[in-house]
Amino acid sequence: MSREKGPDHSRRKERSRQAILAAARALVTEETYEKVTVEAIAARAGVGKQTIYRRWPSKSAVVVAALLALSEDADGQSVTLPDTGDLRADLVLVMRATVEEFADPSFDKLIRAVNTELTNDPTLAAEYREKLAGPLDEAKKARLRSAQKAGQLASDADLDLALEMLYAPLFLRWLHRSGPLTTAYADSLVDATLRAFAP
Amino acid sequence: MSREKGPDHSRRKERSRQAILAAARALVTEETYEKVTVEAIAARAGVGKQTIYRRWPSKSAVVVAALLALSEDADGQSVTLPDTGDLRADLVLVMRATVEEFADPSFDKLIRAVNTELTNDPTLAAEYREKLAGPLDEAKKARLRSAQKAGQLASDADLDLALEMLYAPLFLRWLHRSGPLTTAYADSLVDATLRAFAP
Repeated sequence: MSREKGPDHSRRKERSRQAILAAARALVTEETYEKVTVEAIAARAGVGKQTIYRRWPSKSAVVVAALLALSEDADGQSVTLPDTGDLRADLVLVMRATVEEFADPSFDKLIRAVNTELTNDPTLAAEYREKLAGPLDEAKKARLRSAQKAGQLASDADLDLALEMLYAPLFLRWLHRSGPLTTAYADSLVDATLRAFAP
Repeated sequence: MSREKGPDHSRRKERSRQAILAAARALVTEETYEKVTVEAIAARAGVGKQTIYRRWPSKSAVVVAALLALSEDADGQSVTLPDTGDLRADLVLVMRATVEEFADPSFDKLIRAVNTELTNDPTLAAEYREKLAGPLDEAKKARLRSAQKAGQLASDADLDLALEMLYAPLFLRWLHRSGPLTTAYADSLVDATLRAFAP
């Protein structure tokens, strides 16, 4: 029994977790979210349905976890933002990476599918906020707070608003395909936001 | 024949147009966009299917027109932005009106349905941009250009970017239900945008 719960067991569990999340991503990309079932995810991952239900309560929870996993480092830790002391450089790096992410066709289909669900399913939207958008926003806000302490942003700056102005235009441009997503665009969002919340 | 094409004919045509657009709005709100058919819109409006097809080529065209009609004045002219000379006051008025619009439950369901389609249908997205978002953006940009000429915005301000920073955060907050839509929020978007593009 001790071997059963040892390193081999952990590795097997992690492999099955990764297989399930990859299967969920692949299926949502190939089908529509509505058509994907927990059974289909289990079959694709080569695990039993119960293996999924032991870990996640619902299909939406698996899909959000699948999206979340894309933001994890190889060791399963969540991403933190660079803090070189140069706020503009750090934000430019993050925003250019975000533009690249949205320009990746497989990510595009997954996040478009998830976004359609979020729009129409307040429960999934709350889950997405709690598990993904929330922690990411907190990481970004921590970087802005450090800049605020260094006197690089106004001491009374509304950091939630600053984040929204930085990110929402990019997201909406991508969602409505209303303009090109370029590094120049990423940079101009950073510059306008820094001007709006300058000391 | 001359009476047939005279004022009575025009009034009848306009009444039937209004009935079709109201039926389209009602059905999209009650059902999902996918389930609504041109036949159902015709039946609800009390007109023949051909009456719709004589004017619009597709269901998506009718639905976009139905949404567009909400932005028309009573006389069918498109809305223009106020220009009192006070840029902040004019933008606050527009942004508060936009917040109110998004808070209206019937508008909420219609625009949420249309947005879901836009996200997944590039043709509908292009139509929406050409017929609705484009002209509205032009009206807003005309107001910003007049402010630029009056020295109230930087002469090199990117007005497309300014519009996106003004509007996208509000839209995304509504879409993802990620925060309250209040007049204070509308005002703070105006103030941050004015700071970002100040002379």
